Amino acid sequence: MEAMATFSSLPALFSRPPVRFLASLSIPFLPNSRLVGRRFRNLRSVFTSCSADRVVARPSSEFRRKNSVAGHEDEKLQALRALFSRPGIGIDAYIIPSQDAHQSEFIAECFMRRAYISGFTGSAGTAVVTKDKAALWTDARYFLQAEKQLGSDWIVMRSGNLGVPTTIEWLNDVLTPGCRIGIDPYLFSSDATNELKEAISKKNHELVFLYDINLVDEIWGESRPKPPMKPIRVHEIKYAGVDVSSKLSSLRSEVFEAGCTAIVISMLDEVAWLLNLRGNDVPHSPVFYSYLIVDATGAKLFVDNNKVTDQVIAHLRTAGVELRPYEAILSELESLAAEGEKLWLDSSTVNAAVVNIYKSACDINGRFVEKGLAGLYRASPVAIAKAVKNESELEGMRNSHLRDAAALTEFWAWLEEEISRNEVLTEVEVADKLLEFRGKQAGFLETSFDTISGYGANGAIVHYRPEPESCSIVDNKNLFLLDSGAQYVDGTTDITRTVHFGDPSSRQKECYTRVLKGHIALDQAVFPENTPGFVLDVLARSSLWKVGLDYRHGTGHGVGAALNVHEGPQGISFRYGNFTTLQKGMVVSNEPGYYEDHSFGIRIENLLYVKEANVPNRYGGIGYLGFEKLTFVPIQSKLIELSLMTPEEISWLNQYHSQVWEKVSPLVDGSAREWLWNNTRPLPH
Amino acid sequence: MEAMATFSSLPALFSRPPVRFLASLSIPFLPNSRLVGRRFRNLRSVFTSCSADRVVARPSSEFRRKNSVAGHEDEKLQALRALFSRPGIGIDAYIIPSQDAHQSEFIAECFMRRAYISGFTGSAGTAVVTKDKAALWTDARYFLQAEKQLGSDWIVMRSGNLGVPTTIEWLNDVLTPGCRIGIDPYLFSSDATNELKEAISKKNHELVFLYDINLVDEIWGESRPKPPMKPIRVHEIKYAGVDVSSKLSSLRSEVFEAGCTAIVISMLDEVAWLLNLRGNDVPHSPVFYSYLIVDATGAKLFVDNNKVTDQVIAHLRTAGVELRPYEAILSELESLAAEGEKLWLDSSTVNAAVVNIYKSACDINGRFVEKGLAGLYRASPVAIAKAVKNESELEGMRNSHLRDAAALTEFWAWLEEEISRNEVLTEVEVADKLLEFRGKQAGFLETSFDTISGYGANGAIVHYRPEPESCSIVDNKNLFLLDSGAQYVDGTTDITRTVHFGDPSSRQKECYTRVLKGHIALDQAVFPENTPGFVLDVLARSSLWKVGLDYRHGTGHGVGAALNVHEGPQGISFRYGNFTTLQKGMVVSNEPGYYEDHSFGIRIENLLYVKEANVPNRYGGIGYLGFEKLTFVPIQSKLIELSLMTPEEISWLNQYHSQVWEKVSPLVDGSAREWLWNNTRPLPH
Repeated sequence: MEAMATFSSLPALFSRPPVRFLASLSIPFLPNSRLVGRRFRNLRSVFTSCSADRVVARPSSEFRRKNSVAGHEDEKLQALRALFSRPGIGIDAYIIPSQDAHQSEFIAECFMRRAYISGFTGSAGTAVVTKDKAALWTDARYFLQAEKQLGSDWIVMRSGNLGVPTTIEWLNDVLTPGCRIGIDPYLFSSDATNELKEAISKKNHELVFLYDINLVDEIWGESRPKPPMKPIRVHEIKYAGVDVSSKLSSLRSEVFEAGCTAIVISMLDEVAWLLNLRGNDVPHSPVFYSYLIVDATGAKLFVDNNKVTDQVIAHLRTAGVELRPYEAILSELESLAAEGEKLWLDSSTVNAAVVNIYKSACDINGRFVEKGLAGLYRASPVAIAKAVKNESELEGMRNSHLRDAAALTEFWAWLEEEISRNEVLTEVEVADKLLEFRGKQAGFLETSFDTISGYGANGAIVHYRPEPESCSIVDNKNLFLLDSGAQYVDGTTDITRTVHFGDPSSRQKECYTRVLKGHIALDQAVFPENTPGFVLDVLARSSLWKVGLDYRHGTGHGVGAALNVHEGPQGISFRYGNFTTLQKGMVVSNEPGYYEDHSFGIRIENLLYVKEANVPNRYGGIGYLGFEKLTFVPIQSKLIELSLMTPEEISWLNQYHSQVWEKVSPLVDGSAREWLWNNTRPLPH
Repeated sequence: MEAMATFSSLPALFSRPPVRFLASLSIPFLPNSRLVGRRFRNLRSVFTSCSADRVVARPSSEFRRKNSVAGHEDEKLQALRALFSRPGIGIDAYIIPSQDAHQSEFIAECFMRRAYISGFTGSAGTAVVTKDKAALWTDARYFLQAEKQLGSDWIVMRSGNLGVPTTIEWLNDVLTPGCRIGIDPYLFSSDATNELKEAISKKNHELVFLYDINLVDEIWGESRPKPPMKPIRVHEIKYAGVDVSSKLSSLRSEVFEAGCTAIVISMLDEVAWLLNLRGNDVPHSPVFYSYLIVDATGAKLFVDNNKVTDQVIAHLRTAGVELRPYEAILSELESLAAEGEKLWLDSSTVNAAVVNIYKSACDINGRFVEKGLAGLYRASPVAIAKAVKNESELEGMRNSHLRDAAALTEFWAWLEEEISRNEVLTEVEVADKLLEFRGKQAGFLETSFDTISGYGANGAIVHYRPEPESCSIVDNKNLFLLDSGAQYVDGTTDITRTVHFGDPSSRQKECYTRVLKGHIALDQAVFPENTPGFVLDVLARSSLWKVGLDYRHGTGHGVGAALNVHEGPQGISFRYGNFTTLQKGMVVSNEPGYYEDHSFGIRIENLLYVKEANVPNRYGGIGYLGFEKLTFVPIQSKLIELSLMTPEEISWLNQYHSQVWEKVSPLVDGSAREWLWNNTRPLPH
């Protein structure tokens, strides 16, 4: 799957080369968009615009909507504004982001405050409410949806469009100097609040942390969904590979080496990975809401006790992990500060409430540290440890990918048959059927993201999500792009195939073949140890560039092992600021594409893992690395323009299809097996 | 030609990936090494070591040499130290770099102070003399030479070797805290002195600028060579393409837009380019010692009047350029400061004397600016203007390259014949003969750098320079690498070919073919506008990486049009910090290589220029770029392992050779023409 908004079709890709890795800069404030790149926050300020002196035009909807206000105010906005002047609050504006307290890509319903207050349900957006204005920022994927869903009191801010101000620019513009801007400090990373504070200080505004109350929750009241309560389960050692004690022990060594006595982990996938636990609190990611503090001798997991089974308690006890209520995190930080513990906190991901409580408590207990100098603020060491998979994790990934391939084989055989019989099927029905096939596979849990089922022009929308009432019919007249993935008990998958059930045009074949050539070039790359991922990005683009084509997203993202489908810190993209090197055991997607607006979309995606390359030399006395495939599903040969392929590329495809048949045919039968046979036959050289 | 020390065979290439573009960090202090990368000075601190806590071992020679001191001191050192305590000087150490006052790659003999004081004549090195020690830093190219040439009072510091301290580390170590370290402020860029100042302040040392005296010159006395006096000539408009008035007018616009009233240009090639003048003050580069100040209405050239002919005076008058004595630069800066002019100075290249005089004068005239805030310190806009060649400059480059190709054809035909007749020829004799052939070509001026004529194992030394008394015989038993270039009145060339006059081994053929595949891949690249050069570097390396091979230098550097053979700011290399994009009209070298230590070296180098690519699409609404070749000299087919070449690569070679024959055959006759015919025959597909 293409990785979220930071990889999305924003206009910044080639417009400002020296800041090319700042592709997300033009999104004024979409916290969700920062997940994959979260380790590089310092390079990608989300609060500032590309250019300080650009013209700040008002979006047309602002005027239209203002005129339509007929004297009566949106009730939720009215209630929210009433809270502004409550004693102890006293603010002039309130920012409502899409995030939860852990910078999660997918969040529980009870945390969807931005959707509740605004009515806009898209996955990315930031709402800002002042005493007399309400505005919502979202990106190009959601412009139409936002227009439709937002009430007339709301202004739609089209992020990335020329002249549209960022959240901060807008606040600095509409508020009189010296205002108080409120936020829920749990919903912003510490780094983000610092940027925010600085940006608004230009107009003498003050950033007000409302620790004890979320204003939207206050209005939401009884109708607010309950927090998720599903039980946590143990991720078996045969899948995890390394036991919790060993993981904690390695982590402690790193923490001590950095001169700290303890570390706070707040990313949910990091907690789950460290503790060999999995949860069910949010869609698509097997994580659970929690914080973890690891110190010299033990560890404390802050989690709702109701989710913890006896088995989990026993599992944690073995590793010396104690339980604490989720809400106790702040008081624990105060105690640790009082005891003089020096904490390691990743301020790019740990929320501002946690960081600030610790800092303030340290300042109060000034006998231990110089004022303001408490703690170490550095990227969490768990990210890289988690990214480098061990052999058991890779085994689980390989196995789950084969079962996934079996489901996909059954699905594609079914769909091809349906289309040939002229059955009318929508994009949503097709996606639902795929879910049904996956559901039959052992260890299947859920989808790893919302399936992108895009027929024809919809395929050109990189993050398209079909809706039942509006989606297209899938037939044999155009390309069909299907990007989907699953969570299994032993692994996480993410695969894209593009097919045509009729006669593709020569234009489509040329574009498809060039995308495939890029896919093959990256798949076959060999590179020295210590190569940053971005170095390889050009290999996937070269064949498109030769004819003046390109795609506006990265080529590869990290994938968790039975964890988040998008994880950092590595990446293969034009974000040249990410110097994370590709390391043996890392999993990455290989997903070049090409999108012809209003016409069709192409993407070919396999997951790969990094392994030692079998090379006869070791120049420089270092290792050389390459990739091994995880994904084994046929690539449609019909779409290939053979005259553009080299003999080596055809060999690659034939070898791949031979492996697909060998590995997947034992898992399918009947018409699916026949389809698999037909779709893995070698092409002539 | 491979570009100097920053591109050299240093061990840092793959050792520290996140700072991979800091390849030169491990050279403690080799100012000359900074030329090509000078725009990125801030990323490549030359004064600091890679790691603050590394073990600082003493090089073995320190002990050996100390023991050999038999009580009598080196006379030059004695004289130098005597000056330390002269009134008005009062220093404890003196740093003597290799540089002139303009950060030139090649310098006039009278400025070779480091060579004079130490006796070491290598091109790169820094001498540091304290009251009781004298040390010289140089890189691996010169370790043996330094050992041989330095007297027993000198310590050889092997830059880049493990445990060898940087200049600053050493000074901070051997001096008692609170010493005064003297420098000639003309010989250091302003940025460099700031780094130096900060680094030595850790031990409470003070950096002392000796404006009025260079201590080495003082000792050198009468025997010091006279400054160069050769006349300056006008670079004809048919070669320059744009007249001086137009260039100055564009520059003024940029200066005013940046909020300045004038700019100081101190890089000699920038002055020469701006004024359409050429000189003869240093070897290999057609430049002349000078400064240029361009203000709102005019310009002042600071140059020795003896070099200026009547023709030059008339040429300058037309463009409104006045003449001033070279030495008058400082007093002019004081006047400008007094008049409140806001100057643009590139502090990474303009020397500390110039920058500091201006700053001090502004501080004294504090009524104009806040103390310390005078001037704009930013990369010179001339660098990029000069790098993007106009059509006349490209025409001169194309023409001079064809004449150069004719000379090379005659040379290679001659050499092949000599070797086949078993004539005994040394590397130096071969290089001299090449010079002879070039000398017959119209418009030839001189070599553009010292010819690298490396037979067998010598070819593996990236910056090898053969010496008459010690160089190898060139015969038919091993590979012969020849990297050479010339200055013509209309252009500058730089070409490397590697050949074998006998039977190459299969190892040599495989390595050669992989280097060639990389060369072809880069030559054929198409890429979107705004692509930084480093993005393409991997294309030249991929085929080597596939078998675990690589080379430890960049792939391409900029080349001046009838100017310096190495120029910035663009580059194609693993220095990922250089975000300069490749732009239409830029000239770059394409020179992948492979070096097997103690055995052989391979490099294949053409010069290319960037042009619009002929592509059927323009995805993103932007232009796509590619390369056009400037160099037309056969590539030895005998060394190609055909089984490793794709049909497209063979076509590339055949097309190239067909172009070579077509373009160069009219310029040669007799045996040279026959050789050219034989060496441009198509290979079978």
